[in-house]
Amino acid sequence: MIKRFGVSIPEDLLNKLDRLARKKGYHNRSEAIRDLIRDRFVNEEWELKDREVVGTVTLVYSHDSHELADKLTDIQHSHYKNIISNLHAHLDEHNCLEVLVVKGKSQKVKEIADRLIATKGVKHGKLVMTTTGKELD
Amino acid sequence: MIKRFGVSIPEDLLNKLDRLARKKGYHNRSEAIRDLIRDRFVNEEWELKDREVVGTVTLVYSHDSHELADKLTDIQHSHYKNIISNLHAHLDEHNCLEVLVVKGKSQKVKEIADRLIATKGVKHGKLVMTTTGKELD
Amino acid sequence: MIKRFGVSIPEDLLNKLDRLARKKGYHNRSEAIRDLIRDRFVNEEWELKDREVVGTVTLVYSHDSHELADKLTDIQHSHYKNIISNLHAHLDEHNCLEVLVVKGKSQKVKEIADRLIATKGVKHGKLVMTTTGKELD
Amino acid sequence: MIKRFGVSIPEDLLNKLDRLARKKGYHNRSEAIRDLIRDRFVNEEWELKDREVVGTVTLVYSHDSHELADKLTDIQHSHYKNIISNLHAHLDEHNCLEVLVVKGKSQKVKEIADRLIATKGVKHGKLVMTTTGKELD
Repeated sequence: MIKRFGVSIPEDLLNKLDRLARKKGYHNRSEAIRDLIRDRFVNEEWELKDREVVGTVTLVYSHDSHELADKLTDIQHSHYKNIISNLHAHLDEHNCLEVLVVKGKSQKVKEIADRLIATKGVKHGKLVMTTTGKELD
Repeated sequence: MIKRFGVSIPEDLLNKLDRLARKKGYHNRSEAIRDLIRDRFVNEEWELKDREVVGTVTLVYSHDSHELADKLTDIQHSHYKNIISNLHAHLDEHNCLEVLVVKGKSQKVKEIADRLIATKGVKHGKLVMTTTGKELD
Repeated sequence: MIKRFGVSIPEDLLNKLDRLARKKGYHNRSEAIRDLIRDRFVNEEWELKDREVVGTVTLVYSHDSHELADKLTDIQHSHYKNIISNLHAHLDEHNCLEVLVVKGKSQKVKEIADRLIATKGVKHGKLVMTTTGKELD
Repeated sequence: MIKRFGVSIPEDLLNKLDRLARKKGYHNRSEAIRDLIRDRFVNEEWELKDREVVGTVTLVYSHDSHELADKLTDIQHSHYKNIISNLHAHLDEHNCLEVLVVKGKSQKVKEIADRLIATKGVKHGKLVMTTTGKELD
């Protein structure tokens, strides 16, 4: 159910919001405001240990190292319940990028991400903390 | 070519490094140190406007909204040179997660990410700033 | 001049906003929303190279090292136009904390912060990017 | 006690470290490496609920609002054991900046920061998570 509430705001700050929303490509103020709220909420969700969350782990590594491919296989086997999907992209003849979608308790997702990022051969790794979407409209 | 250099460090701080590296799953100190350096370097790369970088954009949205699917198609058509791959995962009967791999100048990648995240129907969106791997060993 | 605008929002997301705002200690929704907007705006301000901004640099260091005290004096002399104030607190018999308030173009403030944080004897340093307040109501 | 350990690193990555360290103003590689380790360690410290940490809270607000001054006084009275020092700087005839040094369990420090930042009249607020220095050499 859609509700509506009013926000009091200095005119100048409202102009800033409109400029920012336009620059980012938002259709209207409500959508920009909802995104600010949702982003803050997702941060909170990750602070709670027992909440189910989703993360994506981005890894850039070189083909030339085989250890990562093996480790990825190992980790996927031991965490097959948490790793629900993955993508592989070739960046050039040496480098590739892998994204893994990981679901579970925030502590667990962080742990799996740490393992992956720490693997020898990974040049750069980052975890994005996002949401199952269930709790968010 | 692999080089070796020495680091002077208080014993207590060295113990902390070892504990942290073990916890994160690093095989040895060198690998942990290299990761700290590379991560800092990738941050710097994104500050330079003219450097080619890679980003992954993670989006969580509901199926029920069709606008995003259309917008994704539109954006992929107008930016087909920058968006090199994407992954789609079903989180539950309503929610799905999409990851797009975007390559280009940092300003351009940020712009495309902003557009995607601002799209109506996207519940949560995040850009990961990573690297082409070319400049990193 | 205070304006008022309406935000359309799913009921469930509105409840989340209210819970979050209560938890953080906001008096009402408008104040929480204004803070979300201002925070995003300050981030944007720091991306513009020519905008005057304010930063605070927090440094934790040990008394036992005299180099920092000397360097602080040096930096304050060479950047006296940018460093407008500072605070010193004793954490224990060895450790102290220093906060410097730095004003100027974002590039300049970052540079001064880098110098300070890189100084030998500083155990931990962090720059907070904030605002002159001039552009914000 | 100072220890020394060796790091194996590709030549190219070593050059990047040297360029970065020079740019930031580090005297030598060891100091740059120690800072990378300490920064990571402080992040970990804040994740542990029971560890004593130090934070600085930076607030930018307008003189014209008296509520903050009153609230600051209130908060300082009720948390006098945690707030160990503060600094006030005049940015212009309307705006001022206040930095508070807060010590305690990470949860407590975050809570106090949230209260302060949420106060009506505060245009921008940020918490820096730093360390008592006790555990760090």
